[in-house]
Parts: sequence; C-alpha cells; structure tokens
Amino acid sequence: MLLGSIEAGGTKFVCAVGDENYRTKDQVSFPTTTPTETLQHCIDYFKSFDIQALAIASFGPIELRRHDPKFGYITNTPKPGWADTDFVGTLKQAFDLPIYWTTDVNGSAYGEYVMTTLTNERINSLVYYTIGTGVGAGAIINGDFVGELGHPEMGHVLLKRHPDDLDFAGICPFHGDCLEGLVAGPTFEARTGHKGQDVPLTDPVWDIMAYYVAQAAIQTTLTLRPGKIVFGGGVVSEPFLDKVRTQFADLLNDYVAVGNLHDYLTMPAIKHNGSATLGNFALALREYQA
Amino acid sequence: MLLGSIEAGGTKFVCAVGDENYRTKDQVSFPTTTPTETLQHCIDYFKSFDIQALAIASFGPIELRRHDPKFGYITNTPKPGWADTDFVGTLKQAFDLPIYWTTDVNGSAYGEYVMTTLTNERINSLVYYTIGTGVGAGAIINGDFVGELGHPEMGHVLLKRHPDDLDFAGICPFHGDCLEGLVAGPTFEARTGHKGQDVPLTDPVWDIMAYYVAQAAIQTTLTLRPGKIVFGGGVVSEPFLDKVRTQFADLLNDYVAVGNLHDYLTMPAIKHNGSATLGNFALALREYQA
Repeated sequence: MLLGSIEAGGTKFVCAVGDENYRTKDQVSFPTTTPTETLQHCIDYFKSFDIQALAIASFGPIELRRHDPKFGYITNTPKPGWADTDFVGTLKQAFDLPIYWTTDVNGSAYGEYVMTTLTNERINSLVYYTIGTGVGAGAIINGDFVGELGHPEMGHVLLKRHPDDLDFAGICPFHGDCLEGLVAGPTFEARTGHKGQDVPLTDPVWDIMAYYVAQAAIQTTLTLRPGKIVFGGGVVSEPFLDKVRTQFADLLNDYVAVGNLHDYLTMPAIKHNGSATLGNFALALREYQA
Repeated sequence: MLLGSIEAGGTKFVCAVGDENYRTKDQVSFPTTTPTETLQHCIDYFKSFDIQALAIASFGPIELRRHDPKFGYITNTPKPGWADTDFVGTLKQAFDLPIYWTTDVNGSAYGEYVMTTLTNERINSLVYYTIGTGVGAGAIINGDFVGELGHPEMGHVLLKRHPDDLDFAGICPFHGDCLEGLVAGPTFEARTGHKGQDVPLTDPVWDIMAYYVAQAAIQTTLTLRPGKIVFGGGVVSEPFLDKVRTQFADLLNDYVAVGNLHDYLTMPAIKHNGSATLGNFALALREYQA
C-alpha cells in the first residue's frame, strides 16, 4: 500500500510516497512558486504512483475545521499569491482519494508522536515547536490535535522580556515582541547584523534566545502538562537546547515535575526534517481507515 | 438518585448533595481546619444522605494520575498540615462508592462546560480561570481534562510586563512576577496598600491587572484555541472583564478569530460560585456510569 505526503512550506514543497509502515519509498522537493504551478507540480508527481490516500501538512494560516466552507484552504497568509488558495479542493479534483489536511507543525507533531509510540515511550501528549524563519507549534493530546476554533498559533504568545534585551522591538509585523518576533531566525540579523549561523553559541544573544524559548516551554508545560516537548527548525541545535533546559529549570523552579529534562525537551527523534513526512504517512493511513 | 459534591478550598469547604439533573438538594459550608477534622466533617455530612457517587474538586497541588501510588492525595501544598493528605483514601474508607477526584478549577471548568451543553452553545473546549487569593485554571478539550503529567498550573506562566508596573516584583513565592504573582487578590495591597474591594475601577492598577489577565487569555487562545474562556474568582467583575476584553483585542490584533468577545471571554454562567458544585455532580454521575 502506498501513501502520499505533501509538506507544503513557504519556501519549498517536499512530496513523498511511503508505505503503511511509514517507510519513504520516493521523495522530491521543489521551490514554492505560484499556487497553480506548485500544486500542479504535486499532482504530476503523485500521478506516477498508485497512492491510496494523501496527507498535506501546510504552511498557514489554514482552515482545518471540516464544517467550514473554506475547509482545505490556505487563508489569509501574507505570502504573495497564496491567500485564499483551495489546496485540498485542487488536489481532490486530481485524485479521488481520502486527503488529510493539517498544518505543517501539526504534521511534524504527529510524526514525533507516532515515533514515541514506536519507541514505546508511553506518552500520550506532545508539543512540537519549529523555530526557523517563523515560529509555530502543534500540540497533540491523546492522539488528537488541539484546537476548536482553529489551529494553535503558539508562535505569537507574549513573554517576559530579558533584562538585556529590553531595547529590541521584535520583528513580528503583527505583535512586535511576541515569541516569533523575539526568536525567529531573522532576529539574529535584526539584533546583531549577522545571520544566525554566523553567531557563535558563546554570544550572549543565544542566552537571550534560550530565555524566551524556555518561557514558551514553560507556558505549554503549565497549560497542557504534555509528556514531551520537541523543538525543530533551523535555529535549534543540541547545544542551544542545553541552554534552553538550563533556563527552563531556573524559571520553572521545580514548581511541577516534568521528569528528565533531556527526555522532556528534545530535538526531533526523526532526523533530516522528516517528522512531517512520517506524520503525513500516518495521517494518510488514519484518513484511509476512517 | 443522589450525588455528592465536595468543593475543597483552602479557606472553606462546600459540601452539597444533588440529583442526576445537577439540581442542588442540600448544601453546607464550613471552614477548612485540620485535614482530620475537615474530612470527618465531610463524612458526617454525607452519612445523612443516600448518595450513589461523589466528586471532589480540591485545592492543590493534587495527584490525579490514577496509576500513581499517591493518587487521591493533596501533595506538596504550602497550606500548613495539608501536605501529603490522602483525601480520596479517607473518603473511600467511609463510603464504598465511585469517587471522582480533580482540582477545584477543573471542577469549575467542568460545571461551565456542562452548562454550555445545556444552553446548546455547541462548544467542545473551554478554559476556566479563577482569580482570587491565588490564580488557577482548568481546561477541557472534547469533554476531557487537559494534563498528562499532572493538572495544569496556568496561574504561574510568565508575562510581558506592563510599562507602568516594571518596579513591582510580584508576590509569588515561587516565581515572583508570574501571572499569580501579578494579579492575585493580595497584589492590590502589595501595590496600593488597599484591599482590592477598596480600589475603585477607575484606578490605573485595574488597567495593569487587565493587561496581564488579557495576556493569560491570549496564551490559552493561541495554545488551545478553546471555544470559550470563563473567569471566576473574587477579583473578577463584568466591568473588569470589559477592560480585559479591550486589552485582549488590542494585544491579539485580530491575529486569529475568536468570535464575539462578550461570548468568548465571560463570567461564569453558573452564579453564586456554583460552577464547581454543578461540575462535581456531573463528574460524580460520569464516574458512577463509567
């Protein structure tokens, strides 16, 4: 049995075909151009395979409430040309198949959640943050995604400012110094004039970043009490996560128990940005079996 | 059919007996003294009624994970004499009945959730905050409480400080200027030297309070995307909530849709602090039927 996955990012799309054991059989990647051209590229790709179901994990915001007339759309995204794109409808016209539709971070969260079941971690709730060009998060409780009025937007919560960072206004066009405005990749250039990859981990700016990311983890810890919080995205590395763990322990002050911090705050278990693709295979299978 | 409810607060206990339609038939209230005396008081009260099940909504922190050896205990509470109290075990010895055990705010959240089903509001997720001597919150998603590693502690999240409140250190003994440290009732005296009830709503301190409470609502909005957020507790009034709504709209900046703010951010639908008692009746019935 073959299942399809589309990880739709603002910069590139990753399309893949896998089996019911979530093993990738084929994968391509291409840049995100116009909706017409990019979705046609997806359709052309999957025409070569006999897939039984498809899952799409897309950049957003998207409409994922099934009763909504705009279900399946990318809605009011600032990305030029992509607002109000009927993503699922376009794919449905090409493929008469079960299609599961969710956010990019939900797809990654689901992949990491499935991985905990395979590794027998006995976790039933998980939060996945991505910290890259933007900041987003998905949450799973008892195997289901969180969000009644729509998908979470945890990248835009407000935080206590670091005393050495009070003069930085933040870069979020909507909220200034929300989480994304303070820790997204482009904040490195805004703060230091250098790209993040050129700023050594000994630079104090990384401690400021860790302070904010730790607060995000505190918020979801105290709100959801999840079994695990996973951090992906270009800004995240194991040495950075160590800084986050230190700040997290300091800020939480043992107020609630979360177990070993190396297990609780982790990098993705699935390597090479594969979380969303594996999650998509599992979601496509779930949609097929529904 | 009769069901029992214990709302166990740090200052007083409210015990009640109701029917399967959640109507209160009898109710008493008494001060919280020692665990032995107070729990005996509960037992004596319920001995007079032929209840079929009981629910307890308790101050905490408590252990509510059923697999834990300390399930049913109030755990490391700072309240003198109450740490490590086997609440459920003590009641079980007196009554061989199904007993449901949760936090005070979860009980209230459940009562308000049940009320939305009775008023046909078609909501399946809800957050309940209490802002009084302390600050706590419970969350329900699809009829179930949130929290794998334990109950939420949303009262202790960190917030962006109000520019006119930067010198206030906060009163939380664990975190200083967390949500509870900034908006719990005793902060009025700490900031102004007057009790909250003596500070007129025109005083700017109420705007500072509203700024923080609005941020708490922003956090749960962006994290859980609930259908409704309810605010109870002595600090909350409808005029105060209007200030919160204004600040919430300003901070959210239309980033996600939440519908009419008067329906979304509300006082409890159940009056006279009855949310937890009604919630307990519903939880006792659920436990009986489980």
